[in-house]
Amino acid sequence: MPASDTATLLIHCPDQPGLVHEVTGFIFAHQGNILDLEQHIDPHENLFFMRVEWSLEKFTLNRDAIASLFAPLGERHQMWWKLQFSSERKRLALFVSKESHCLYDLLSRHESGELPVHIPLIISNHETLKSAAARFDIPFHHFPISPSNKVEQEKAQLDLLKHHHIDTIVLARYMQIIGESLINAYPNHILNIHHSFLPAFIGAKPYHQAYERGVKLIGATSHYVTTDLDQGPIIHQDVMKVSHEESVEDLVRLGKDLEKTVLAKALWWHVTNKVLVYHNKTVVFS
Amino acid sequence: MPASDTATLLIHCPDQPGLVHEVTGFIFAHQGNILDLEQHIDPHENLFFMRVEWSLEKFTLNRDAIASLFAPLGERHQMWWKLQFSSERKRLALFVSKESHCLYDLLSRHESGELPVHIPLIISNHETLKSAAARFDIPFHHFPISPSNKVEQEKAQLDLLKHHHIDTIVLARYMQIIGESLINAYPNHILNIHHSFLPAFIGAKPYHQAYERGVKLIGATSHYVTTDLDQGPIIHQDVMKVSHEESVEDLVRLGKDLEKTVLAKALWWHVTNKVLVYHNKTVVFS
Amino acid sequence: MPASDTATLLIHCPDQPGLVHEVTGFIFAHQGNILDLEQHIDPHENLFFMRVEWSLEKFTLNRDAIASLFAPLGERHQMWWKLQFSSERKRLALFVSKESHCLYDLLSRHESGELPVHIPLIISNHETLKSAAARFDIPFHHFPISPSNKVEQEKAQLDLLKHHHIDTIVLARYMQIIGESLINAYPNHILNIHHSFLPAFIGAKPYHQAYERGVKLIGATSHYVTTDLDQGPIIHQDVMKVSHEESVEDLVRLGKDLEKTVLAKALWWHVTNKVLVYHNKTVVFS
Amino acid sequence: MPASDTATLLIHCPDQPGLVHEVTGFIFAHQGNILDLEQHIDPHENLFFMRVEWSLEKFTLNRDAIASLFAPLGERHQMWWKLQFSSERKRLALFVSKESHCLYDLLSRHESGELPVHIPLIISNHETLKSAAARFDIPFHHFPISPSNKVEQEKAQLDLLKHHHIDTIVLARYMQIIGESLINAYPNHILNIHHSFLPAFIGAKPYHQAYERGVKLIGATSHYVTTDLDQGPIIHQDVMKVSHEESVEDLVRLGKDLEKTVLAKALWWHVTNKVLVYHNKTVVFS
Repeated sequence: MPASDTATLLIHCPDQPGLVHEVTGFIFAHQGNILDLEQHIDPHENLFFMRVEWSLEKFTLNRDAIASLFAPLGERHQMWWKLQFSSERKRLALFVSKESHCLYDLLSRHESGELPVHIPLIISNHETLKSAAARFDIPFHHFPISPSNKVEQEKAQLDLLKHHHIDTIVLARYMQIIGESLINAYPNHILNIHHSFLPAFIGAKPYHQAYERGVKLIGATSHYVTTDLDQGPIIHQDVMKVSHEESVEDLVRLGKDLEKTVLAKALWWHVTNKVLVYHNKTVVFS
Repeated sequence: MPASDTATLLIHCPDQPGLVHEVTGFIFAHQGNILDLEQHIDPHENLFFMRVEWSLEKFTLNRDAIASLFAPLGERHQMWWKLQFSSERKRLALFVSKESHCLYDLLSRHESGELPVHIPLIISNHETLKSAAARFDIPFHHFPISPSNKVEQEKAQLDLLKHHHIDTIVLARYMQIIGESLINAYPNHILNIHHSFLPAFIGAKPYHQAYERGVKLIGATSHYVTTDLDQGPIIHQDVMKVSHEESVEDLVRLGKDLEKTVLAKALWWHVTNKVLVYHNKTVVFS
Repeated sequence: MPASDTATLLIHCPDQPGLVHEVTGFIFAHQGNILDLEQHIDPHENLFFMRVEWSLEKFTLNRDAIASLFAPLGERHQMWWKLQFSSERKRLALFVSKESHCLYDLLSRHESGELPVHIPLIISNHETLKSAAARFDIPFHHFPISPSNKVEQEKAQLDLLKHHHIDTIVLARYMQIIGESLINAYPNHILNIHHSFLPAFIGAKPYHQAYERGVKLIGATSHYVTTDLDQGPIIHQDVMKVSHEESVEDLVRLGKDLEKTVLAKALWWHVTNKVLVYHNKTVVFS
Repeated sequence: MPASDTATLLIHCPDQPGLVHEVTGFIFAHQGNILDLEQHIDPHENLFFMRVEWSLEKFTLNRDAIASLFAPLGERHQMWWKLQFSSERKRLALFVSKESHCLYDLLSRHESGELPVHIPLIISNHETLKSAAARFDIPFHHFPISPSNKVEQEKAQLDLLKHHHIDTIVLARYMQIIGESLINAYPNHILNIHHSFLPAFIGAKPYHQAYERGVKLIGATSHYVTTDLDQGPIIHQDVMKVSHEESVEDLVRLGKDLEKTVLAKALWWHVTNKVLVYHNKTVVFS
């Protein structure tokens, strides 16, 4: 993690010779020093993927100018591209329900300075974790959800998120299906943690499903939320061994450690601008 | 692994106080010294599970007598039980198709003495691995399978298996669905290796399915074969990390290492009498 | 984890036939129902190891009577044995310095009810984490340590620990070597987390040592503290992959996740009475 | 793994702006299409590291010309660089002693086409594995080693290696310390597999050392051989969980699976030109 301010470009486009040379030429022309570059192609689909991060210390363009000057190059090669700056910390809203483990994990990483983000607010459909939020001095907003008020409440949530300039939503064990208005407002910017190794055990009570099937590993999956339940692009997954001795309650308890670390790792990659989404899959330049 | 000859009892039955005391009393009464005992209960279903292994060095009963003397105790408590001896090596038939990695892995473990079994024969629906079998001096039997001859060929296979006193079938990447006659003749004695983390990616081409979904881990699962495809009791599973850089061909290549080690480990537990099957799940006393 | 109250016996002694039968006979004689039993021997040293946990629901002995009635049996077989009750929650003192990650991890597990212990106090040689303790309403005691006051301060700490009936000390990244008076007062009851895969990288700055050596995995080790630095009985270890891209600062950051989970897991086994120490090694009946 | 022929450049040099641009400009100038590029810097030492692989399908330079034309660019920036071609398969000599598991593993990978190398010969200080080599039709050369003949025998081995144009030596559990004449003839081209998680348990009988210390994980490490025993640059490491139930003999048996897969993975990276050595550490562009 470089100490000084950096810029990062994520790119995908049809492949052709000379692309790396041209992009790095743009950076070099303005005195940028590249710190990290990863590029690969998908030969089956003739696609080019790249991430490049460079130091802004001696870079001669100011931030606003970079995008406008890079745009013609991108257009010439039909690039999808995204420019981000390490100094512009992501602004997170944490959505929670009754379980505290992911919330405490993220709040303690934030408080210690490990996780370089702003967390202006916590939103919940229950009041259970109000005191947890208070322990870390983060404003807590209670939005009880019922079938009759769901659309209206999500509209109110969206207003609140916009008011706080939130750019990333983290569903930290939020046990409520998010509606389309929120999803469409934050495409590939809502991270969920699902308590199974997707695509196994989609939907409700995955630990119960895992117990019934007698699997020897339990998992957790962090993915971006799309309108297809548990079907969005996977960012990170991990598993742990379990045995016949574990009850469903044991799986629930043990799985919390997976959920915490998988969500935190996926979020780390998201906030350090390492994740590119293409065709419902992620490229994680880790 | 004890050097001397041992006996092993696997037991499950309704739970009640005194069961461990009574079973160990039977062993102690005949001068048996217990080397290893594991017992637990399933409190939800009130079930008792146990594995006990004892030395036969000073045991005063001969083998044939043990079962007949233990039977009344088992009957009294409605026990399912199974008695096995370390000196009676399992007799394996390896079923293969065209891929050699699991076959070579098992044959080299057998040749070095690591895997304490007999392998009287290899059966295949193709001739591809005939030379591989020949390298390790194991008789190779070719049974080409077509929809029209399948029933007849499996009957011939069954005759051959019985002739060689085979007690365990290992499907070492055998790419042919086994028929009911074989499955019913070897209940919980046919081990398969499926190249995914079951229940994800059941059926054909799991690595292609994994690639399409964009998972970040690939897996392998060894299970006992039942008449429900890929639904039998799971013995062992493992996974490895993959990334966006891997093509389907890379997943296929990388997955071979998982398939080899997961199958070999499941087989190890099977041949050392560590696996008990109950209600389509395994208890692995590892 | 059984809901009702249970008793647990940990035992080691010279091996001989009949020991399991005799111990389980003691339990059965008083109407105890065994929930979980693990026993094995070390054939090289002729040693017997066992853990048995039984329900006290219908047990006819009261707690004080169990130990006195079991003592003659133990003496007869030269047993080391330890009797513990699930209802008697361990009383922990957390020792910390400046790093908050292990502290927050344990406090949030405690607060959510996941970790069944009492935490009457936190002790630190710095004031840095005073506010962290306050967030979770745990009394914080500051004991600044210098070469000149170390003996005296540890005496004061010991008085405080005794006053609060502390039975287990957790060094949650306490960066100060504990003196003999404390160690001898809490034999095999002080858990440390060392930030390396011991015995690699003993002593100070293990992540720097790991970086210098160019290892491809970093680790963490939780062990009981003895008077030999970083040489006590190992309870749990785990590792994670790292690469050439990680700086020392990255290793420090990544390693925190290992430290948290390894310490929490070791502590779980300690407080659920799963750990037996013999000859500077642990038997973890997990 | 691209189907067509590719060229790969590994580079390290002092960092400065424009290096990626210049190297990719060289490739683009001759119609090369880059398939994969990874670059990063070490900010503490101001070092630049890079691997780039490009297709030779439409490349306008022939192989011999590439190096001579690239040389001035490399010299201008004080680069260490290495050019390799996917079509030039590495020529391996396998050194073995009495244990067959790594040998069989590599030979079966080679026979199935998974490992794209030539293996012209096997060298051993014992005759034990002569029949194993014969099974796979690889010439076997027996060089018994004693203190009195060691220098002379290594000279004969070196002659044989040169005669067969061997470029990589794989010590596949060769239990004999290699002399300086061989090491100096193959700098960073001799791969060893050590049966511990280095730097823990350097030297003889690491599983015995691991058992004595009571570690909860055993490991294996593949590294390039230098004149400092077990101190060369580490290419790959992995571990597996063990418990108190495992005897030393169990650790030896279980560890074989680690040794096989760790050595095979390190060798894969070596033969696919993914490994760069710098200051006794490796950069693995995996």
